[in-house]
Amino acid sequence: MQNCNNTNSANLVDLSNIYYTDIFPIKENSSLSTREFLQRVIDICLEFIDESNDRSRPILRYNDPDEMKTKFNFNIGKEPINLEQIVHDCAQALYYQVRTAHPHYFNQLSCGLDIVSLAGEWLTAAANTNMFTYEIAPVFILMEHEVLKKMRHIIGFYDGDSILAPGGAISNLYAVIAARQKMFPEYKSKGLRALPQQLVLFTSEHSHYSIKSAGAVCGFGTDNVIEVPCDERGKMIPSELEKLVKIQYEMGNRPYFVNCTCGTTVLGAFDPINPIADICDKYNLWLHVDAAWGGGLLLSSKQRHKLDHIERAQSVTWNPHKLMGTLLQCSTIHFKQDGLLLETNEMCADYLFQQDKHYDTSYDTGDKVIQCGRHNDIFKLWIMWRSKGDKGYERHIDHLFEMRDYMLKGIKARGDKFHMVLENPECVNVSFWYIPSRLRNVPHDDERIKELGRITPILKARMMQKGTLMISYQPLGDIPNFFRNIISNSGVQKKDVDFLLDELDRLGHDL
Amino acid sequence: MQNCNNTNSANLVDLSNIYYTDIFPIKENSSLSTREFLQRVIDICLEFIDESNDRSRPILRYNDPDEMKTKFNFNIGKEPINLEQIVHDCAQALYYQVRTAHPHYFNQLSCGLDIVSLAGEWLTAAANTNMFTYEIAPVFILMEHEVLKKMRHIIGFYDGDSILAPGGAISNLYAVIAARQKMFPEYKSKGLRALPQQLVLFTSEHSHYSIKSAGAVCGFGTDNVIEVPCDERGKMIPSELEKLVKIQYEMGNRPYFVNCTCGTTVLGAFDPINPIADICDKYNLWLHVDAAWGGGLLLSSKQRHKLDHIERAQSVTWNPHKLMGTLLQCSTIHFKQDGLLLETNEMCADYLFQQDKHYDTSYDTGDKVIQCGRHNDIFKLWIMWRSKGDKGYERHIDHLFEMRDYMLKGIKARGDKFHMVLENPECVNVSFWYIPSRLRNVPHDDERIKELGRITPILKARMMQKGTLMISYQPLGDIPNFFRNIISNSGVQKKDVDFLLDELDRLGHDL
Repeated sequence: MQNCNNTNSANLVDLSNIYYTDIFPIKENSSLSTREFLQRVIDICLEFIDESNDRSRPILRYNDPDEMKTKFNFNIGKEPINLEQIVHDCAQALYYQVRTAHPHYFNQLSCGLDIVSLAGEWLTAAANTNMFTYEIAPVFILMEHEVLKKMRHIIGFYDGDSILAPGGAISNLYAVIAARQKMFPEYKSKGLRALPQQLVLFTSEHSHYSIKSAGAVCGFGTDNVIEVPCDERGKMIPSELEKLVKIQYEMGNRPYFVNCTCGTTVLGAFDPINPIADICDKYNLWLHVDAAWGGGLLLSSKQRHKLDHIERAQSVTWNPHKLMGTLLQCSTIHFKQDGLLLETNEMCADYLFQQDKHYDTSYDTGDKVIQCGRHNDIFKLWIMWRSKGDKGYERHIDHLFEMRDYMLKGIKARGDKFHMVLENPECVNVSFWYIPSRLRNVPHDDERIKELGRITPILKARMMQKGTLMISYQPLGDIPNFFRNIISNSGVQKKDVDFLLDELDRLGHDL
Repeated sequence: MQNCNNTNSANLVDLSNIYYTDIFPIKENSSLSTREFLQRVIDICLEFIDESNDRSRPILRYNDPDEMKTKFNFNIGKEPINLEQIVHDCAQALYYQVRTAHPHYFNQLSCGLDIVSLAGEWLTAAANTNMFTYEIAPVFILMEHEVLKKMRHIIGFYDGDSILAPGGAISNLYAVIAARQKMFPEYKSKGLRALPQQLVLFTSEHSHYSIKSAGAVCGFGTDNVIEVPCDERGKMIPSELEKLVKIQYEMGNRPYFVNCTCGTTVLGAFDPINPIADICDKYNLWLHVDAAWGGGLLLSSKQRHKLDHIERAQSVTWNPHKLMGTLLQCSTIHFKQDGLLLETNEMCADYLFQQDKHYDTSYDTGDKVIQCGRHNDIFKLWIMWRSKGDKGYERHIDHLFEMRDYMLKGIKARGDKFHMVLENPECVNVSFWYIPSRLRNVPHDDERIKELGRITPILKARMMQKGTLMISYQPLGDIPNFFRNIISNSGVQKKDVDFLLDELDRLGHDL
């Protein structure tokens, strides 16, 4: 047994030794130590949460991978390790972890940490069940039905079916295969080769790569996922879509699926649903709306017009773990037609999903998913939504937009220190270049843009090394690297936006 | 604001009101209440864990779906709800939840609740990050590298690559598409229709349905996923495989993928890897080993011979959330060839996975998965394994088999009360019929078997209504319903096995 030199271990029985007795000898002598161990880990988590919310503390303590390997002991040995050491490992892991809930972390579409959702995820872990049957997850299965029905109603699907999936990419994959099932039901048993024509998918050049990935996975081939040009605001151009659809028909192929993005990853653009839906009607194409990012806007009466006519879609992806702030992961896919999910995915595995059980097995979800076992992603969403209520969520979304507006104003007020990549963003994405002193009085031509693209990663590296700020950057098509700032943490306040803009200047003015 | 009539709410500030201020105002006046709320939920979880381990308490309080809907308030309203009510909701949800950690719960491949893994999952929730880049998950990304490398070494892959996936079905899907990429690299861009021949997959008739599902998803068609007959112990018959492969070649098709199951879902059978690998070599087929269930046996020197020659596979699925007792979900897929995962799945989304970052981006996983965002499933496995050490895990696995042996002995000792469906199981699955009094003195012919198949679900319903025991049942091919008992909770003791066998008799003797 490896020993640990920490003190205070007197009360801690080494649980790693009790593999063949009870795992929870709570009713017996060692009860205190099991609880004490869990309580210590909880205390470490609470401290981490405190620190995440303390604006004066760093977002991260940056180390290169090679340094990190020398600082953190990843080794799993032959012998057990006592619980004191395990508690220490937990503290160490969080010490080096990026604080994604820090009000100065603007790096990802998922920022923040809602404490009610966190409580929900803690409870989910203790319940440790699988979401395939009512039998072993009665409350959670019914909860999933209720919440997904509510989400469908918000979309405008008054019938239909839905499922929670491990991320937006898998949700989009569900849509691609369900569309194929609906339009070409013979593919399921015969395969694509039995179809007379090559099937073709369409998605905007700014859309998420998961549509292309689904094209590869499903055997259409990425060449048959056609990228439709966008306008200068990043929105799909419907006339370009129609042109491309016609070309594919003329080539003898069969266009079948259009992905309409509501909230693109970088610019936060919303493709125009209504004209795209018209084209889908005209050419007999499945309309999928990927609102993984923008779906949360449906909860705000001020914002939901950006998704007007979403009910014309046949399927919708919507990730509560993004704008709605639910803990990772929580992604949903919704279908207008009831029964299609089951028809697409059922493999009639009656050895797993018995039909002769003593309850109504129509609640069981196992046979309508591609996953078999599924993590319980519903409780953390339900409890958070229940706590906020629809009105709370509306205020949550509206607050994010107020902070974004404050940021846009702040950028304008700072004159030539910033240059917008997109002037009037539709979502909470703000895309810009920071301009160091030496580049402020030069024209914004290709040369300056190229130089800004070069220094953006350097500025990002400075942020991470200092640990005060995190904003994502990326190129987009021909546009070299620029920052994309996200406000999706409802804990962000005006002072955080001021800090963000000023800190960029402090870190980058000399670049 | 909806009010709650519970007392003790004086100290609890309603956090659902503070959407637009800090989420964690811990440094301010209301600090106590945030912590207090989380602590209350933790206390509810700890009580649930106590109860789960108390053999005198029920596994579940059964309700039909319609009853459950009247007992539990699933409603999400317009108005926020205070935290007292949220705490109450948490308690209610667990009150009605099945205790999957109860020592009398033998229902699923995943039973039990390891407290170190639970602590790991709690910490994971607090860290709330996404597993696509080193940038936002430095410790966890390196941890994933280390643990997966260790698992590959245990398999016998001394190079290669791996990834964590949301369940065994998705892990198997990864194998199907990687095999296709390796053997027919042109499919990724051109699609299956560009290939000259129909591709064909092979899997045993007792294998998991996810192979068939992957056949559907990937566009091969379920007709082209050929089921290979098994022997009376549920193991694939290699000569039958060879026969079927030849037939497909003769038909002009292209056999390409063989799934060899190590630990089937129902009988726990292990397909013979070596002769199947010989056939794969001879006919140029990809060998995948689905050891989602049986993979844990690799950790025991007594048991690992059942997977001898697994290193001949090109890919291996192995789910730590099953025999290794890690919390749900934790599934891994391993490839012998390094670089193949990336080659298969990369979409070159440089707007998400920038190559010009200031650290070695080869650690980033985002571009080699089909998910984009991924839940952190590594910490709960790493911390559990580190706590047990390899020796602890070996004892864990050996203990499960000792309990299984004790069960087999107990069944034998109880004479004509039980009838085995499979006499000498290879894994911890024990498949049997319980024989009620009136059927004990009749020959075990088709008529008795049919009657046993009819009463098995009735006995299961009685278990659930009384709440004392849970064992899964299912038909298998022509064999009507029988019980499949799983011992995968290392908290199970001899007294629990005795209880299980005696309780069946108490509940079912009069059937």
